[in-house]
Amino acid sequence: TIVKVLEEEQKKKQLLKGVKVLITAGPTREKIDPVRFFTNPSTGKMGYALARQASSLGAEVTLVSGPVGLSTPAGVRRIDVTTAEEMYHQVLEHYPASELVIKSAAVADYRPRVTYDQKMKKTPGEYVVEMERTRDILMELGERKEHQYLIGFAAETQDVEEYGRQKLKSKNLDAIVINNVSEEGAGFGVDTNVSLWLTKDGEQKSFPLMSKDDLAKRIIEEAARQMKGDYA
Amino acid sequence: TIVKVLEEEQKKKQLLKGVKVLITAGPTREKIDPVRFFTNPSTGKMGYALARQASSLGAEVTLVSGPVGLSTPAGVRRIDVTTAEEMYHQVLEHYPASELVIKSAAVADYRPRVTYDQKMKKTPGEYVVEMERTRDILMELGERKEHQYLIGFAAETQDVEEYGRQKLKSKNLDAIVINNVSEEGAGFGVDTNVSLWLTKDGEQKSFPLMSKDDLAKRIIEEAARQMKGDYA
Repeated sequence: TIVKVLEEEQKKKQLLKGVKVLITAGPTREKIDPVRFFTNPSTGKMGYALARQASSLGAEVTLVSGPVGLSTPAGVRRIDVTTAEEMYHQVLEHYPASELVIKSAAVADYRPRVTYDQKMKKTPGEYVVEMERTRDILMELGERKEHQYLIGFAAETQDVEEYGRQKLKSKNLDAIVINNVSEEGAGFGVDTNVSLWLTKDGEQKSFPLMSKDDLAKRIIEEAARQMKGDYA
Repeated sequence: TIVKVLEEEQKKKQLLKGVKVLITAGPTREKIDPVRFFTNPSTGKMGYALARQASSLGAEVTLVSGPVGLSTPAGVRRIDVTTAEEMYHQVLEHYPASELVIKSAAVADYRPRVTYDQKMKKTPGEYVVEMERTRDILMELGERKEHQYLIGFAAETQDVEEYGRQKLKSKNLDAIVINNVSEEGAGFGVDTNVSLWLTKDGEQKSFPLMSKDDLAKRIIEEAARQMKGDYA
């Protein structure tokens, strides 16, 4: 009946009412000097879609965002960062108070060991950039997890499912969204994704080719369902 | 009189009528692997403003563009490239037929010596990226210059004017636009610039803080004036 459909819609609108959600989005930039840096092709679309979706379901969303060209979804509190180190500090600060945490940012895993304040002058021939690891934010979130429901992303180009399962376990996640970024219509810069959803309880779902908005909806609904014990 | 103003406007509209203009814009990306690359903060705004302006003055504009989030100005023929090497080939191909050439792209001057087809796996500890020089597109344009009026940009953080003068000469340019990108309101990602215009004939003009659209207008008008001998 129409009444039932409307009731369902109404219920969905409240699905995350008052739930504190922390989402990370976009790339980070790791500078060599003021005009040169290492980064990745993340546009932030997935994370922003997740933030929009969670907010529309009543959540209190904090979005920690790397440099992207997107506008902030309505009702979302956005914190801008540039480097992996800045993202680390913002995420860790907001983690204790968060209930649902989705780490969709593509954080650089390496950064130049030395950053120059002035533009480096070109010299003939080769030069070598020494890179060091950035902090593993997701690992840290997994280790410090208490009441949080923690979702990670894996973007791989080969052995995608196997690597995703390993990451789910090694980072102590509750669920993971696995993308094969070398597949047509998946990954960085495009508006769609093809993904696999795995939970630590062994649940597995294939999300076929769909828009990042639709995928965000599916992820948020799955997460809300999993968290239901706590928030029903 | 109104008639005079309208006549002036009409004349300006025809300022570059039929002139073949080649403009480069945006950053380039130099890959380490499918999800990691080296780049710079150029958003392409300056180059796109130049293309829009030249086109509105009647020029036939070809815009060779690195990856940016901007839409193509009306009437402009846009060629998308990603790497410095791709930009080199496109620019060199269109150079002989061009009359006014403005190189506003922030082409990476180094690229990783080796690019991996698959995503590199993280390993503990440091690693080293060996970088090699990309080709110097502007130098090559200067060397091959025949009938072209060639304008370059310099983005510096110190000794700005001196470096700009050297570049004007060493690259055999006709004019150069020098920006101090460490100045407030100048450079990458912002909508304004503060610049110095120098020509090989020793002309010098300061362009105070203005929008990139206004700066584009000034540059195009200066260029048209300088080229007037040929196109009046």
